[in-house]
Amino acid sequence: MSRVFNFSAGPAVLPEEVLEICAEEMKEYGSSGMSVMEMSHRSKDFEEIIQTAEKDLRELMGIPSNYRVLFLQGGGHTQFAMVPMNLMRNRVADYIITGQWAKKAAKEAEMYGKVNIVASSADRNFTYIPDLSDLPISPDADYVYICQNNTIYGTTIKTLPDTKGKDLVSDISSMFLSEPLDVSKYGILWGGAQKNVGPAGVTIVIIREDLIREDVLPFTPSMLRYKIHADNNSLYNTPPCYNIYVCGLVFKWLKKLGGLEEMKKRNAAKAKLLYDFLDESQLFKGTVEKKDRSMMNVPFVTGDEETDKKFIAKATAEGFKNLKGHRTVGGMRASIYNAMPMEGVEKLVAFMKEFEREMCK
Amino acid sequence: MSRVFNFSAGPAVLPEEVLEICAEEMKEYGSSGMSVMEMSHRSKDFEEIIQTAEKDLRELMGIPSNYRVLFLQGGGHTQFAMVPMNLMRNRVADYIITGQWAKKAAKEAEMYGKVNIVASSADRNFTYIPDLSDLPISPDADYVYICQNNTIYGTTIKTLPDTKGKDLVSDISSMFLSEPLDVSKYGILWGGAQKNVGPAGVTIVIIREDLIREDVLPFTPSMLRYKIHADNNSLYNTPPCYNIYVCGLVFKWLKKLGGLEEMKKRNAAKAKLLYDFLDESQLFKGTVEKKDRSMMNVPFVTGDEETDKKFIAKATAEGFKNLKGHRTVGGMRASIYNAMPMEGVEKLVAFMKEFEREMCK
Repeated sequence: MSRVFNFSAGPAVLPEEVLEICAEEMKEYGSSGMSVMEMSHRSKDFEEIIQTAEKDLRELMGIPSNYRVLFLQGGGHTQFAMVPMNLMRNRVADYIITGQWAKKAAKEAEMYGKVNIVASSADRNFTYIPDLSDLPISPDADYVYICQNNTIYGTTIKTLPDTKGKDLVSDISSMFLSEPLDVSKYGILWGGAQKNVGPAGVTIVIIREDLIREDVLPFTPSMLRYKIHADNNSLYNTPPCYNIYVCGLVFKWLKKLGGLEEMKKRNAAKAKLLYDFLDESQLFKGTVEKKDRSMMNVPFVTGDEETDKKFIAKATAEGFKNLKGHRTVGGMRASIYNAMPMEGVEKLVAFMKEFEREMCK
Repeated sequence: MSRVFNFSAGPAVLPEEVLEICAEEMKEYGSSGMSVMEMSHRSKDFEEIIQTAEKDLRELMGIPSNYRVLFLQGGGHTQFAMVPMNLMRNRVADYIITGQWAKKAAKEAEMYGKVNIVASSADRNFTYIPDLSDLPISPDADYVYICQNNTIYGTTIKTLPDTKGKDLVSDISSMFLSEPLDVSKYGILWGGAQKNVGPAGVTIVIIREDLIREDVLPFTPSMLRYKIHADNNSLYNTPPCYNIYVCGLVFKWLKKLGGLEEMKKRNAAKAKLLYDFLDESQLFKGTVEKKDRSMMNVPFVTGDEETDKKFIAKATAEGFKNLKGHRTVGGMRASIYNAMPMEGVEKLVAFMKEFEREMCK
């Protein structure tokens, strides 16, 4: 057994403690006589699992009582369609394009109505967040859409856009539970679990009650209606039970560590260590404007493709896995989610320093 | 650790051997240094997992090369919409209603076109399969739809309908991999994994290539297009990786046991033991016409609600779990999927005999 430091952007590292519980409880959960994977989703044991998961998530995020929490399937790509299908009453929406996922979401929404791109950082390969303080919000926009942390490019929207009264929909997949957020500022918050919350296969949607509507677009499949899932407490059909169970274990782990204020402190410290090194390094440099840097995803380059390749190969051999950057950015990317311990970042920085010494000798 | 006999209709019992491998590999898969839950879906390790799973499934089912295998999310309810959205060129389809799931599928399809009910067993609470040898198939039907094994009612369509040349779409969720099927007789075969194949959260679709079309209904979300998933080998977005891994372990287990011919033999023997007892019992009786009995789901009643309740309570206390029948049938239901050992059925029958002796004394 030798666990590596896994810097994957997602699916990504999970807390070792959580995996240990998964292994221990695999053949029998509590005194149920069966695995969580074998339980009816209508059983008392599973109801307790999903209800506790929701309760813990509400506590962690301070979710107001007029918001519902839904555990869904289909990942972010399904939300790209669900959001317009459920919200586009006027068939108009404003999208802020800060990376590939917002772009994909906008493209999907175009199937259902008029999509206005009210801001974009495509001009400089999404290496910054545009000024969002005074946007040309459409008077009849049904919502304003953002991807709040851009996994590929390593940027975060730190000051929410002024939506001029329109509901804000935010994809928080790669920053989910990394720091406190004021849920009341959003209409819908959603995230795929597979980055910072749990295994792939469950998407968590936090939605203000008045946005859960009966009058969705025609042809909206039942499974893509927020109302059906809300009315059935996420048990309209068989949910991804085991995946929800693992998320629940992660919530408990976060609570034990001290909640999201504590996670923010830890994540900020990890990110600072890595960014400070990038800023002083002769070899490596970050690719993102300093003010917009993500605490979760840290892309960096040497400026020379061959050196990047050599670094990645050497890092991989030393147990620093999945550091290759996304093909649209190149270079490297270290995703340092909640479950990445400080030790992993310390060792990575030490390794980078050594590599730099070797190279610049 | 005391595992029970779990007769749940789904999510349902999994092979103990598979759960043991899950537990062993939880913290590290092979020499990857990480859990399958933590792996990038683009990693070599995961690619090998999904490709091996597909290869093993193809081998087990004898899937012809002009069929694609897709690992999707969203369960059967998503297929209820995907099938018409992808196949309804003429906006007409014929449905055979042999239970609640076919009924739900037909209702969903009504959103997208004209649905003709060409046969139904609703008149006698779905306790039989109607004659399907000469149906009023619509000349312009885009497909004919069946739910081949009815989990709730305990019936199986043993002779496929004469579709008069139309493509047959079959929901095989609760009989998936329980016996050999001739895949070439179908246009689409699909099943939720959570009954006989793996944990909830993955749906396996087997689709003939010519039915994978670009020209789907307008407004069909990307995630609901077979073509997008086929073009991307089920990796258009992050799939439910861990769930697919567990399915793959079940496929390996089935191959080791001897494949689907062997499973059919075992399943038939288990079902015979239970049905033979029901046929000779003074207290219990099956609810389904003999010729249409399912090998997988066996509903039975005593005819007296109080006695049913007493039986279920006593059985539960003795470690025979989830025997309560569906509310629309009442009484009891024993789901005896692949992973239920003969020993479980033997002990259940012995327990039923003893209960009967007590009651009829």
